[in-house]
Amino acid sequence: MEGKYMKNTESKIVVAVDESKESMQALSWCLSNLVSHNSRNTLVLLYVKPPPPVYTSFDAAGYVFSSDIISALEKYGSDLVNSVMTRAESVIRSSGTNINVEKITGSGEAKDVICSIVNKLGADTLVMGSHGYGFFKRALLGSVSDYCAKHVKCPVVIVKHTDDK
Amino acid sequence: MEGKYMKNTESKIVVAVDESKESMQALSWCLSNLVSHNSRNTLVLLYVKPPPPVYTSFDAAGYVFSSDIISALEKYGSDLVNSVMTRAESVIRSSGTNINVEKITGSGEAKDVICSIVNKLGADTLVMGSHGYGFFKRALLGSVSDYCAKHVKCPVVIVKHTDDK
Repeated sequence: MEGKYMKNTESKIVVAVDESKESMQALSWCLSNLVSHNSRNTLVLLYVKPPPPVYTSFDAAGYVFSSDIISALEKYGSDLVNSVMTRAESVIRSSGTNINVEKITGSGEAKDVICSIVNKLGADTLVMGSHGYGFFKRALLGSVSDYCAKHVKCPVVIVKHTDDK
Repeated sequence: MEGKYMKNTESKIVVAVDESKESMQALSWCLSNLVSHNSRNTLVLLYVKPPPPVYTSFDAAGYVFSSDIISALEKYGSDLVNSVMTRAESVIRSSGTNINVEKITGSGEAKDVICSIVNKLGADTLVMGSHGYGFFKRALLGSVSDYCAKHVKCPVVIVKHTDDK
């Protein structure tokens, strides 16, 4: 129906955030363009950690990995989540937008986790950067947003790094 | 910069419209979510006609095409433009949004023309349906929005047909 996208007073907007500036620009675009006129929106910050690596007890030279190294790697992962969420919260605070914020951290293949969570939440809009999903995925530039644009059910906003402009 | 997407009081939003319901839903989404809070936006309705066919004087059976047939085909093309623009205007009217509307008709390969016009206009946002560009492009479902998401400089909103939801 042509009038199906009616003004929705309680919509759920998911912003996929990661370590990139681009994802913070996507959040900023969202706050400026989608959120400000409607304080009853819920903004969901979604961060996807890469799947946990499978550790073998020995490295290539035959040395045993110490549990210190393993826990350091795990700590690094959760520091990354905290750092990204803190940056995102600071972008929201500095926008002066009064909005209900939820935070979700997923783990796994970014494109699959984003689509699955967005569809499960019944989100109204997904906002994300155009490029890969953090530096873990640089080799697949663009593929995450392409995939999500095809596989989520709601409208998807793809925001570019403005230095390209 | 993280705060680059600041609230813009005079932004130009291009909506790519075609014969599909999906493109009208994209327009409707735009009116409900991007436009309503800012009356100083300009909404550009962009329709791209397929490139004019190269007519040969003879058909496969050796008959000469009459100029009546050629002009009927051309009339069909411009009727299509008018019909799409009329539908789009009716969607805008029924949304009750008071906005400055411009109409642009391009001709050529939809994906190239959309990207070129959006970039030349320095548009702030492109909004379009996720599927092919009208029934001329059914064989390439999704490819136009994929291409545009990669090649325009501004944020791109891809809106799905809500019957899929």
